[in-house]
Amino acid sequence: MDRPIGIFDSGIGGLTVVKEVVRLLPFENIVYFGDTARVPYGIKSKDTIIKFSLENTLFLLGHDVKVIVIACNTSSSLALPVIRKHFKIPIIGVIMPGAKEAVYATKNKKIGVIGTRATVNSGAYEQEVKKLDRGIKVYSQACPMFVPIVEEGWTQDDIAYKVAKKYLEPFKKKGIDTLVLGCTHYPLLKSAIQNVMGPGVTLIDSAQQVALEVKHVLAQEGYLRKKRMKPAIEYFVSDEVAIFKNVAKKFLGKELKNIQKVPNV
Amino acid sequence: MDRPIGIFDSGIGGLTVVKEVVRLLPFENIVYFGDTARVPYGIKSKDTIIKFSLENTLFLLGHDVKVIVIACNTSSSLALPVIRKHFKIPIIGVIMPGAKEAVYATKNKKIGVIGTRATVNSGAYEQEVKKLDRGIKVYSQACPMFVPIVEEGWTQDDIAYKVAKKYLEPFKKKGIDTLVLGCTHYPLLKSAIQNVMGPGVTLIDSAQQVALEVKHVLAQEGYLRKKRMKPAIEYFVSDEVAIFKNVAKKFLGKELKNIQKVPNV
Repeated sequence: MDRPIGIFDSGIGGLTVVKEVVRLLPFENIVYFGDTARVPYGIKSKDTIIKFSLENTLFLLGHDVKVIVIACNTSSSLALPVIRKHFKIPIIGVIMPGAKEAVYATKNKKIGVIGTRATVNSGAYEQEVKKLDRGIKVYSQACPMFVPIVEEGWTQDDIAYKVAKKYLEPFKKKGIDTLVLGCTHYPLLKSAIQNVMGPGVTLIDSAQQVALEVKHVLAQEGYLRKKRMKPAIEYFVSDEVAIFKNVAKKFLGKELKNIQKVPNV
Repeated sequence: MDRPIGIFDSGIGGLTVVKEVVRLLPFENIVYFGDTARVPYGIKSKDTIIKFSLENTLFLLGHDVKVIVIACNTSSSLALPVIRKHFKIPIIGVIMPGAKEAVYATKNKKIGVIGTRATVNSGAYEQEVKKLDRGIKVYSQACPMFVPIVEEGWTQDDIAYKVAKKYLEPFKKKGIDTLVLGCTHYPLLKSAIQNVMGPGVTLIDSAQQVALEVKHVLAQEGYLRKKRMKPAIEYFVSDEVAIFKNVAKKFLGKELKNIQKVPNV
């Protein structure tokens, strides 16, 4: 069917998920919403994150989407259960796909998770991992400075390495062999993170797994688009288009088109 | 009169202004609003900052305040002219007091200003300085990483010094002798900033000047409280109370009481 896939994020990070969805499902129409006026979510409370996420869901439903992807670890950790409880539409989050891949990757059954404070405090990754294998140990660490570093474009700077070291040194002592990048910004810091953790630790970026999950759900529901035609991909943001466009370029390495500001958020 | 002074900020930073107002005007009632659900403002657009600031103003007016202090450099830079245009109540921002103090302090007529991207792009400090002395040169630099560093509590860390150096090295070449800390978070990074700039540069923290301006305006309007009684100081936030309380402790070195979450923002 032609109805679009709806994807929302607190801001820009969800574009890494859009990229993988487009790669795997190149004919699907997409409506993306980035809540750039209220970004970031990761420093805020559960109630506020749920409130914002419900509003984002309503916005996407207004665009007649056929499935909703929560392309934000913080929203997925805290708001997904509530959204799933209230709405009939299939909802896909980023936690379960990331947890699944980490469980598959670990050999010594010690997994690390890094994310925003809200994601880490929620314990969402640990819950999902335990559902798959109770014998796995999960260690987690909030890294609040990673998002500003990425948005500042300092991913290759020595400061990125120093900050990564400050947060991740404790993990090396735990002996994890797998580390979930539990925030859509973090893949842009892969080289600094890998540098600190060493080559023996596998980094998990869930975007590809999320795209696979989207395909799986669409197929299951009979919702895949049949037409092999160029799709419409529309972006909506709650703050100014120009700001989003600038940071998007850092994320995707290309200019985005079809971006509109939503007046009423 | 007993009506309270209204003070708003995008979040926590305005508490440095509250502190100075309380010191100078110990009998005044105060209502503070921190928009912690939508913080930060400094990475957002002019329209969004104006919209949020107008909403904050309406909130404070609902508490029958006698004057409104915009204790946020970003809001003061971008929204103050609009708020002043629309509302009858006296409005005090933080830009003019800071600019005044910097003009007074500089000997070589070269002033630096650091702030959020929105504050720096607005050119608000430069405008105010030029009103006072057209012969002064103003150089400015956005320092987006300073706020997250303060909120992470890394003010004494080596990383704070490295980040300060990265932003401020260009200023040393300009030969400024005065530097305006154009964001309420920055006074907490004074030691790192002073370290980079050297002892010859005077750092301007406008909070004290803002308090003086509040006293001046209240006296002028005949609005000073006559009763020498313990005042009521109330705090309202748009996100969870506990999060605000934690960061407030870092800012003020003490526990805050009388904090309430506002349900409808």
